[in-house]
Amino acid sequence: MKTVDCKIDMNAAVPFNNQVDFCIGTGRMGLALQRQYYEQLKLVQEKIGFKYIRGHGLFYEDLSIYNEYTDENGETHAEYNFTYLDVVMDMYKELGLKPFLEIGFMPKKLASSGEEVGFWWKANVTPPKSYERWCELVTATIRHLADRYGFDEVKTWYFEVWNEPNLGGFWKDADLGKYCELYKHTVSAIKAVSPDLRVGGPAICGVDDERWMNGFLTYTSENNIPLDFITRHHYTIHAPETVGHYQYPDMIDRESADITVKNTRKIVDSFEKYRGFDIHLTEFNTSYSPITPLHDTNMNAAYLAGMLAELGDIHASYSYWTFGDVFEEHGVPFTPFHGGFGLVANGCIPKPTFHTFTFFKNLTGRCIHRSKELIVTEDNGKLHGVAWNSIINDEPLEDIKISASFSLPDGEYCMITKTVDEVVYNPRKLWHDIGEPANPTPEQNELLRSAAYPLVKSQRIMAKDGKIDIELNLTPNAVVYFEVFEAPIKSDRGFEYNRINRTVRSK
Amino acid sequence: MKTVDCKIDMNAAVPFNNQVDFCIGTGRMGLALQRQYYEQLKLVQEKIGFKYIRGHGLFYEDLSIYNEYTDENGETHAEYNFTYLDVVMDMYKELGLKPFLEIGFMPKKLASSGEEVGFWWKANVTPPKSYERWCELVTATIRHLADRYGFDEVKTWYFEVWNEPNLGGFWKDADLGKYCELYKHTVSAIKAVSPDLRVGGPAICGVDDERWMNGFLTYTSENNIPLDFITRHHYTIHAPETVGHYQYPDMIDRESADITVKNTRKIVDSFEKYRGFDIHLTEFNTSYSPITPLHDTNMNAAYLAGMLAELGDIHASYSYWTFGDVFEEHGVPFTPFHGGFGLVANGCIPKPTFHTFTFFKNLTGRCIHRSKELIVTEDNGKLHGVAWNSIINDEPLEDIKISASFSLPDGEYCMITKTVDEVVYNPRKLWHDIGEPANPTPEQNELLRSAAYPLVKSQRIMAKDGKIDIELNLTPNAVVYFEVFEAPIKSDRGFEYNRINRTVRSK
Amino acid sequence: MKTVDCKIDMNAAVPFNNQVDFCIGTGRMGLALQRQYYEQLKLVQEKIGFKYIRGHGLFYEDLSIYNEYTDENGETHAEYNFTYLDVVMDMYKELGLKPFLEIGFMPKKLASSGEEVGFWWKANVTPPKSYERWCELVTATIRHLADRYGFDEVKTWYFEVWNEPNLGGFWKDADLGKYCELYKHTVSAIKAVSPDLRVGGPAICGVDDERWMNGFLTYTSENNIPLDFITRHHYTIHAPETVGHYQYPDMIDRESADITVKNTRKIVDSFEKYRGFDIHLTEFNTSYSPITPLHDTNMNAAYLAGMLAELGDIHASYSYWTFGDVFEEHGVPFTPFHGGFGLVANGCIPKPTFHTFTFFKNLTGRCIHRSKELIVTEDNGKLHGVAWNSIINDEPLEDIKISASFSLPDGEYCMITKTVDEVVYNPRKLWHDIGEPANPTPEQNELLRSAAYPLVKSQRIMAKDGKIDIELNLTPNAVVYFEVFEAPIKSDRGFEYNRINRTVRSK
Amino acid sequence: MKTVDCKIDMNAAVPFNNQVDFCIGTGRMGLALQRQYYEQLKLVQEKIGFKYIRGHGLFYEDLSIYNEYTDENGETHAEYNFTYLDVVMDMYKELGLKPFLEIGFMPKKLASSGEEVGFWWKANVTPPKSYERWCELVTATIRHLADRYGFDEVKTWYFEVWNEPNLGGFWKDADLGKYCELYKHTVSAIKAVSPDLRVGGPAICGVDDERWMNGFLTYTSENNIPLDFITRHHYTIHAPETVGHYQYPDMIDRESADITVKNTRKIVDSFEKYRGFDIHLTEFNTSYSPITPLHDTNMNAAYLAGMLAELGDIHASYSYWTFGDVFEEHGVPFTPFHGGFGLVANGCIPKPTFHTFTFFKNLTGRCIHRSKELIVTEDNGKLHGVAWNSIINDEPLEDIKISASFSLPDGEYCMITKTVDEVVYNPRKLWHDIGEPANPTPEQNELLRSAAYPLVKSQRIMAKDGKIDIELNLTPNAVVYFEVFEAPIKSDRGFEYNRINRTVRSK
Repeated sequence: MKTVDCKIDMNAAVPFNNQVDFCIGTGRMGLALQRQYYEQLKLVQEKIGFKYIRGHGLFYEDLSIYNEYTDENGETHAEYNFTYLDVVMDMYKELGLKPFLEIGFMPKKLASSGEEVGFWWKANVTPPKSYERWCELVTATIRHLADRYGFDEVKTWYFEVWNEPNLGGFWKDADLGKYCELYKHTVSAIKAVSPDLRVGGPAICGVDDERWMNGFLTYTSENNIPLDFITRHHYTIHAPETVGHYQYPDMIDRESADITVKNTRKIVDSFEKYRGFDIHLTEFNTSYSPITPLHDTNMNAAYLAGMLAELGDIHASYSYWTFGDVFEEHGVPFTPFHGGFGLVANGCIPKPTFHTFTFFKNLTGRCIHRSKELIVTEDNGKLHGVAWNSIINDEPLEDIKISASFSLPDGEYCMITKTVDEVVYNPRKLWHDIGEPANPTPEQNELLRSAAYPLVKSQRIMAKDGKIDIELNLTPNAVVYFEVFEAPIKSDRGFEYNRINRTVRSK
Repeated sequence: MKTVDCKIDMNAAVPFNNQVDFCIGTGRMGLALQRQYYEQLKLVQEKIGFKYIRGHGLFYEDLSIYNEYTDENGETHAEYNFTYLDVVMDMYKELGLKPFLEIGFMPKKLASSGEEVGFWWKANVTPPKSYERWCELVTATIRHLADRYGFDEVKTWYFEVWNEPNLGGFWKDADLGKYCELYKHTVSAIKAVSPDLRVGGPAICGVDDERWMNGFLTYTSENNIPLDFITRHHYTIHAPETVGHYQYPDMIDRESADITVKNTRKIVDSFEKYRGFDIHLTEFNTSYSPITPLHDTNMNAAYLAGMLAELGDIHASYSYWTFGDVFEEHGVPFTPFHGGFGLVANGCIPKPTFHTFTFFKNLTGRCIHRSKELIVTEDNGKLHGVAWNSIINDEPLEDIKISASFSLPDGEYCMITKTVDEVVYNPRKLWHDIGEPANPTPEQNELLRSAAYPLVKSQRIMAKDGKIDIELNLTPNAVVYFEVFEAPIKSDRGFEYNRINRTVRSK
Repeated sequence: MKTVDCKIDMNAAVPFNNQVDFCIGTGRMGLALQRQYYEQLKLVQEKIGFKYIRGHGLFYEDLSIYNEYTDENGETHAEYNFTYLDVVMDMYKELGLKPFLEIGFMPKKLASSGEEVGFWWKANVTPPKSYERWCELVTATIRHLADRYGFDEVKTWYFEVWNEPNLGGFWKDADLGKYCELYKHTVSAIKAVSPDLRVGGPAICGVDDERWMNGFLTYTSENNIPLDFITRHHYTIHAPETVGHYQYPDMIDRESADITVKNTRKIVDSFEKYRGFDIHLTEFNTSYSPITPLHDTNMNAAYLAGMLAELGDIHASYSYWTFGDVFEEHGVPFTPFHGGFGLVANGCIPKPTFHTFTFFKNLTGRCIHRSKELIVTEDNGKLHGVAWNSIINDEPLEDIKISASFSLPDGEYCMITKTVDEVVYNPRKLWHDIGEPANPTPEQNELLRSAAYPLVKSQRIMAKDGKIDIELNLTPNAVVYFEVFEAPIKSDRGFEYNRINRTVRSK
Repeated sequence: MKTVDCKIDMNAAVPFNNQVDFCIGTGRMGLALQRQYYEQLKLVQEKIGFKYIRGHGLFYEDLSIYNEYTDENGETHAEYNFTYLDVVMDMYKELGLKPFLEIGFMPKKLASSGEEVGFWWKANVTPPKSYERWCELVTATIRHLADRYGFDEVKTWYFEVWNEPNLGGFWKDADLGKYCELYKHTVSAIKAVSPDLRVGGPAICGVDDERWMNGFLTYTSENNIPLDFITRHHYTIHAPETVGHYQYPDMIDRESADITVKNTRKIVDSFEKYRGFDIHLTEFNTSYSPITPLHDTNMNAAYLAGMLAELGDIHASYSYWTFGDVFEEHGVPFTPFHGGFGLVANGCIPKPTFHTFTFFKNLTGRCIHRSKELIVTEDNGKLHGVAWNSIINDEPLEDIKISASFSLPDGEYCMITKTVDEVVYNPRKLWHDIGEPANPTPEQNELLRSAAYPLVKSQRIMAKDGKIDIELNLTPNAVVYFEVFEAPIKSDRGFEYNRINRTVRSK
């Protein structure tokens, strides 16, 4: 057992830019038509409540926005169908979400080549055969959205050009120059609707990222191309081993993992024009593969706590990839616990990481403590904290006991804890133990959901001599939320809580 | 720590008449108009699912069935208003419930005296001033119900004459002779609608109960008064001490508690005509007072397990008094954890005892074991069991470890446990710890409900040499449900449950 | 057929103080616990959406706020139970409503006499036996509400002292002097919580109202008693004839009916201190009796349109008495169409008058026309209007054809009409025709609701030469809502609305 | 105005095989994952309640059932993914539907050729490259369903081999011989699961249908191939003209339209083995194209009434194609009123034809009258009828007045009518009048739905001299439902329906 002691000053002001609820990732937009998708997102919004949502596939065939027809003279014309797009956007609005709109990929009929495709669902990832038509499409789409939702609304959205162009799988030949060209055209097509719309890029992941970031920013700054914010992605695993439908990676330790994003920050700040510019992590997670069983574990949940505590230091936001497991980048999942990105497993089962988010969402107010396993905020005299027990290196985890001492006015307090760990919150283990059913029945899903409630406990604590002492016990990979608040007891007349006669007698 | 070992034969056939879901009690019928009442009952029906419901107050003023008016000649006529009755009965039907209809108390305008009243809400408990009018009222009411719901339906109901006439508080002077008269008239008024309708009594509690049961059965048998079943009540506490709004009793040990109902069984069987007749416990609970904090505890839940295991031995049914805490016999409750009878506390919070019922509801099939802390049934090869750790005498409880060995075919099995104990399921403690708020806010109620989920765990077990060994650990006052079923694992291609690389590395 | 022609200038600015959604009346507060009440109010809020709600019975026994107990020394103490009050207030908040809180009637245990009671439910209407205890009760209740909902919230509420004290049935001997005394004590008890809370009276109806209004205002002004607004009630029938459970009045014509409230306005303005003071009609309707079949008719709906068009001229607000028919002032209703005050009949059936409210709710923007049968507003280029055909005197109604000409820019317009009249919206007639079932079954209620949808029609109109001509046809007692807005057609490629081949052929 | 008189004998027994609710068509199964699909189907099931549902695309790529992978030895294996299939089937079960399961089309990876595709969504319509693999797939799929839902359940389903193989667009070269081969293999693969499963074909439409039906039945009978029922489709339009996204056909008159299906009946009955065999129309509608504005009209609704009255004469069932407009055979719809097959338009707006179904659903009991515009049944003394005014030839429709006289016992009756015609139920017109918005906003959809309630009216009728006379007035393309039932009035004490004083007076 590891022990951690800390003394915490209620008046401290520790850096913590809590953007846990800023944005969330999603499977491709066409999947947003699904009922399961809606139910998972509804759960996520009720319990966490994100502000923005970002995903691929705006121009993919299943949304069917871009169409062509031939007139009586044999001329081909574009025509746009916004039927499904509006269904999706109406639903986002219903759930309190705004789009962080990724502009891409290429409609097949507009593509310069049919061969390069990404994902199981075969997104076309080539430049347009005509930038004129592409720009018309982009402008028409955004103008349509502005007509429907109002300019004032659309100005609060974000527009991002393409996805991970630094990978050949998502952009033909991973050609930086051609991406810059795409960016230039696309940003102008968006700004044609209104110069107030916010556009960013280059949405790269960690491959060859320094060259890309430098190259892209040089291009935009030298050519005076509008750029309102910068985006990139962040994953923290080593290359995984693939077995059958699954991938098994090692994780990168937190410190090493941060090096890349810190480098990006440095590159950005090295441009005078972009010094201090907002960098949005428009995707992050541990593994970048949606078939990584790790995602479904408490280990992931605890590791994420460390990320959520720190990612805001140098980023304007960080968007977990993704909210749910209605997701098809590697095909339709074969089981609910297949290692998808989602906070929620299919069957509407919140995974452990779901609660790393519900817990951080509660960290309101001013941060008064942040360490490698504990973060605490103070809000109107109430303490909110999250503690976690996450792997640091290749040594096995042991239990942690955290003893924390807070300066607080004397009085009667209550501490509530909510625990998510392998013992008390492990629907994945339950699913395994009942035989790993590929498609649980509705009854089995109900059972699985019944194993997905954090354990809630409470205790009374006295603050004496201006301080209060609390103790938190964390099993390996545990994430524990707690709050401490003043709670004097005003018992009803005659009520004595402890007076249950704990005896029986026959006479 | 106490240890219990048992060897259980899968082919055993142990007596167990599981009527856990036959009938449930309710606050007076007028309260059934309330929204809170509906929500609590809906929860109870979704999670437990009773068949019948029984409560007082059919003819109480708030339902307003009995009315009188004076015509132009100065003559007074009765007229009946079934508006609210129908609202209540429609709601019961919507929730899958049939009435176990208690005929009583006396409408004020029909009462022979205005002085004797029961409960805070002042039910009139005197005989009618006119048995003719009383019988017209009873007949008209039941005929109305038969018109509305159909005769075939109403024949499946039960009709019970009055409530606890052996107490002066519920029947003027606790006069047995006058109750027999009331019974005679009432049964004839009911049978006037159809001789097929089932009528019973005398609905007594434990005061002077032997004289009453003997007297009543002598009366009906000698005078050939129809009697289709017999009813009584059953509470298991000593007289409580009252402090302010609350009462604090000692419990009676289970063995002593059973003496009274066993005596009733003997009395009934002593009448040739009634030998083996159905006896329905139309009310039972630990305490007979709705301000007994005991009701809200895990102690109550564990004690109830012992009752639910055995009450069916000599009773056709046993109806827990009551489903929820929308209840006014001692006035409107001042707090949610005021010790009401309900399975559900106000705020829609399931108390521990709620789950003694959900757990017993799952005991389907043939009973193969029943002891003082464990009951097990077998249903199509699946085991269902409930274990509990309840006080037996005045000695403090210790933990119990139950080791059970079942004869079962070799193979891979899964055991699921659901635990309700003071540690993992204690909304009352949480409420205390946050300061005993008299009227929790909606947010506080949500917090309280979040502490009211049984802890669900699972494990895999191998049956070898034709048997399986399981172990159950019970803290004091714990109630644990478990099931064991065959669960061979068919992993998806490439899926290895245990292959989460529990290391991180920087390189 | 009567014809009406009008020319309407889009730039006109006609007086119209539309407070249709300011406040609504309700049956006594204890009824707000009911499920039916909630469902009716939910419907009303979804379709109309009031801001305030006002009803009797805050201190009536069923809410059980005021209690007394005797301590060990034999001394009696007051204690307050806010359990039900909080349930009601939480529900109002959930539905977007704030209380316009009537302070009354007298708790039985605090009453100076037990004999004087109002309503079927027997409200005690006497002064308190101790003004000290009364004031403690009032202060404690409002302080509790401020604790629960916040001071900022409670400051937006209204507090009104008592109900119709000018009637002996609601205030012992209708004693003006004693009401002034009650007012003085009560206002001080409320202001003790915060001087910012708004208090008003005298909540009188039309009996002896001039003497009362003069007397009350003289009292408050001369004695410098705080008074933040003035309240009275307004009903517009002659004394009705009673037959069985029902009352049948003649209505007063609109012009005569207004005389009383105009006199009140004059009296108020005659006090220098109160000149121009807000007068709230805290109750109004046609009949003051909840057993007036008139309430359920289209005749009531059309008459109400006239009232809603004009009542704002001299009143700050006017609160229709009441939203629904869960109401017991004359006892529990025997049938759904018993003539209750409600906008909604039991069974959740919107009566015709319900839509007079939904229609007026849509009258946003600037009023450009108001006459005896038509009112029109303009809002961002869109016209909203309500027309009605209501009785004026004792002559039978004939159909009305309204021809209205609006100055509007040339272009293509659409007119939508929604009609509620005896022919297309008459659930009461349907209920009659199926045999006047006292308690419709759920299936019958569904049928009744299916006859309660306004008939919606549309037509296209061209504005030419700067004007548009519309025509509205109103059967007797019809209320018709309409809107006119620009609606150029952009047909999809190939779509021709009128091209349905209205022929069949075999070859 | 046309007049129709009829005298109807209550004891008549007229042929009428009402299978209105037997089966309904649906867009391809993958669309069943959508939220909009679910909401439309839920509405349909609540208001109509079909028993079976049939659609294409079981093996289409979006359900992703058939997959292949290559093992370490380079061998390719099939593997099946039932994740989405189970989601769809669970949803059908939730809504009370069983599949009428169409086996097809060909998974791309199993196809003998990639070129032939049907629909916008490119279903592969070629024979399998390996009948062994095809049969394994079919058997595995049905076995999986039997495992999940139970054999007893799956035996109540229907299995149909392929869709419209007599069209080259749906079966390569429309090759009858190759279809017979496909049928033979497929039926054996299904019967391999259980010989009790019911299999049928050939699912042809009206092209070259006589040769196909003869050929297929000759094949199965001569080769003793199991065949449990026969299926075909039925559409009643002439070839349409195409303009832009839309098609405009003439309809075939009802009599001519029936010739084809009558011929099929004759062909089937000409085989001794199949005489009287069940023929299921597994698709029928007016137009066979999902871009036919006719579908959305009252004209369609009235024409359908004639079909629903008669199709059961020679068919075991007839399945309207389709329940809703989430449908992509010609691409994603551009507007809600694009002429889709659905009973419900996108936006969840019931089209007029929806109510032809709700009305016929009510025709329970024994048929006592059937003519070209009227059908009536008698059920326990209650009359249910549907009347319609549908085009017969190329002459324009006029109003119809139907006078019907029924033999009925003397007494007081009520007649309810529900009218759907162009005047009172025309959401399509409303949509046109507001400008034909391609994607109505949620508010506009609410408006459109508000114009989609049948007009409900009632009247009282006396039966005298053993008969009752009713009159129905039908505008062109009207469909009117009515019921007549005894309804004596039992007025509450004092209630007089007609006593509303229709006068006002000032004094």
